[in-house]
Order: sequence, then C-alpha cells, then structure tokens
Amino acid sequence: MSATVLDMSMSLDGFIAGPNETPDHGLGDGGTRLHEWVFEGSGSGPGDARPTGVNGRVFAEVMATGAVVAGRGTVEPAGYWRGDHHDGVPIFILGRGEPPAEIGGWPLITFVDDVATAMRRAKEAAGGKDVLVHGAGVARLALAAGVLDELELHVIPVLFGGGRRLFDGLPAEQIELERTRVLEGEGGVTHVHYRVRR
Amino acid sequence: MSATVLDMSMSLDGFIAGPNETPDHGLGDGGTRLHEWVFEGSGSGPGDARPTGVNGRVFAEVMATGAVVAGRGTVEPAGYWRGDHHDGVPIFILGRGEPPAEIGGWPLITFVDDVATAMRRAKEAAGGKDVLVHGAGVARLALAAGVLDELELHVIPVLFGGGRRLFDGLPAEQIELERTRVLEGEGGVTHVHYRVRR
Repeated sequence: MSATVLDMSMSLDGFIAGPNETPDHGLGDGGTRLHEWVFEGSGSGPGDARPTGVNGRVFAEVMATGAVVAGRGTVEPAGYWRGDHHDGVPIFILGRGEPPAEIGGWPLITFVDDVATAMRRAKEAAGGKDVLVHGAGVARLALAAGVLDELELHVIPVLFGGGRRLFDGLPAEQIELERTRVLEGEGGVTHVHYRVRR
Repeated sequence: MSATVLDMSMSLDGFIAGPNETPDHGLGDGGTRLHEWVFEGSGSGPGDARPTGVNGRVFAEVMATGAVVAGRGTVEPAGYWRGDHHDGVPIFILGRGEPPAEIGGWPLITFVDDVATAMRRAKEAAGGKDVLVHGAGVARLALAAGVLDELELHVIPVLFGGGRRLFDGLPAEQIELERTRVLEGEGGVTHVHYRVRR
C-alpha cells in the first residue's frame, strides 16, 4: 500500500532553510548545511551524490519512491529538477496559476491545484511504491487536509536560529504521531520516521 | 566535570507549551501532553511520578542532577516548586527585579540576574554533578552567551501547531552540535542528547 511520506532535512530547531531566502538563493544563508549528509561520501557534487552507511540506506529509500509531490516554492528554486527528480517517476506540483512555459518539454510534470488531488493522483501513479512529499507549504496543506500518511525527518545537529521553519502555520490542534523508526546516521544526523494517526 | 544541561520536553514541531498560556495555565491548552511520559507507569499524580523502562532511566538522570537553573517564567507558574525541585539541591533563578516575598522561606532558592553567573554558581554548587537547566528563555540566553554545555530533549510524538516554541529568538547564526545519544523511550518519546560544540 502506497503511503505519502514527507521527506525533509531540518535543523534541530526546526528550520529547513537559512535566513535571507530568495528565489535565486532557495536554501537561504547557510542552508546547504542541512543537505551535507546527502553528499558526504560521494566526494562530488549534487549530480552524483551517493552517501554510504546508514545515511546511504535512508537516501536509497528516498530514491525508491514511485512519485513526487512538491510545491511550487520548492521546485522553482530547484529549476524543476530539469524535469526529472529521479528515475523518471511522475512529479505532481501543487501550485496555482499558469505553469511556466518551459515545463512544456517536461512530460513527467503535472500541475495540480489541490493537495488532496495531488496526493491521490501521485499514489495512483506510484505503482505501489511510496510517494515522496517535499516542501513546508505542501506539508502544512496535506496535514490540514488529512492526506499526509508519514514523515521522515533528517534532523541535522545544528541550531539555525532563523530562516524558514518546516512547521509553521499549522492549525493549532494536536496531531498525534506514531514513531516507527529512529536511525542514527553518520555525521550526527538522526533519521526519525513517524506515521500520522488518524 | 559538571555540565549545564538543558532539559525540555517538546513536540516534534518544537513547542514546549500549547496556545493560550497564562500564569495560571503555564503549559497552555493541551500542554500536559508533553509531560505524560513522566507520569506514565506511576498511575498517580506529579508528586510521586516514577516512569519505568527507558523513560525511567532518563527521568532518573534528571533527578540525579546537583543544581537547577531556571527562569522566572518557568518557576512562577510552577509555584517555585514550593522551594524544592528535587532532593534539596540548590536552585538558581534567573530574573530581574525583586524576588517575591514568599521565597524568604525557601533557602534553596537564589535569584541571579545574569545567565553566566547563574550557570557558574550552579556548577560550583552542584558538587560535581550536572546542572539541570529549564526554560526557553534561559536556553536562549545561555546559548547566546556560550554557557550551555548540553541539551537533552524529550521529543514527544505529536504536532502542536501552536503555542510557545523552545527555540525562538536565538541569534541567527549556526551553532553546531554533537549528537551524543538517542534513546527510544516508551510511548514514542525519543530522548536525544547533544553537546554544544564551541
């Protein structure tokens, strides 16, 4: 059974980007600190990142998902991943308004204006695999709508003090979670997995 | 060697109290959810709480500290713990202005108006044991002043969506941490321990 899984790296104080974020500077000041674990062990750039050990196992799970759901705020700074997040899986982008002209050449990308529809279509398209969910805005909408199944957070051993928070603007009501896994990754990264109780 | 250890229970989204906090309602709406782990297993009230298992081991460590540092905002709603946090250890309260009259009868309590002094005096008084640090305000000041040594966070499997955050108003500069321990407590509580790198 396919699950929608929010996958985010965050600082211990809950930030997913540093201060002074702009469209050209999507992770904010110092925000790349949160993603070092993905590149450690590869000795090279983002294009061929292959972490090893525990981090490698977690990274491989992310790459084994069958579809992606992300918000426009996440994909625009990332250049729409040039149309392919990983292995040619379908990508559903939550966003209002006209899609940008350049996505015409990227057949894997579908724009959807409603979070429940995005999650449903991504599950259908994932071929029984999990759906990778990216972005704070999508997480907020999906939690509020009750369509987020799980969370996989990579907690980085750093305090940011400022920037953009993962959890901000959620409805002020308690959402109970079930902790399903904790993995102690290399470099002090802690991978925690939760299932949303409904 | 005595260490100053911030000890806090927080929701996965970083809250240490629910919304609508007042002096008479210090944990805010639903905030007691964060402290259930301390009382589970005891079958009774706060006075004789004795968690068992992993949670019990962590709780015992807290109770083995040799001094306490807390902010006025933490101790006032708690009625100054009637003058004794645990086992008669000295208590240093960070706060400006006149101490309230009733503390005259509580010899364990000392008011201090500077966080570095509070930490230094607590370490001296702790008899070689660690110092228990409580409260978001004290944490913020101690981190900014470089006088917090370690953090022990009890991460509760719940999203609050609102309330008071543990990490708020820190200087926007990265503080690197070393993860020293992760324990999977009962009830989905994850106890994470970090050392502040300086």
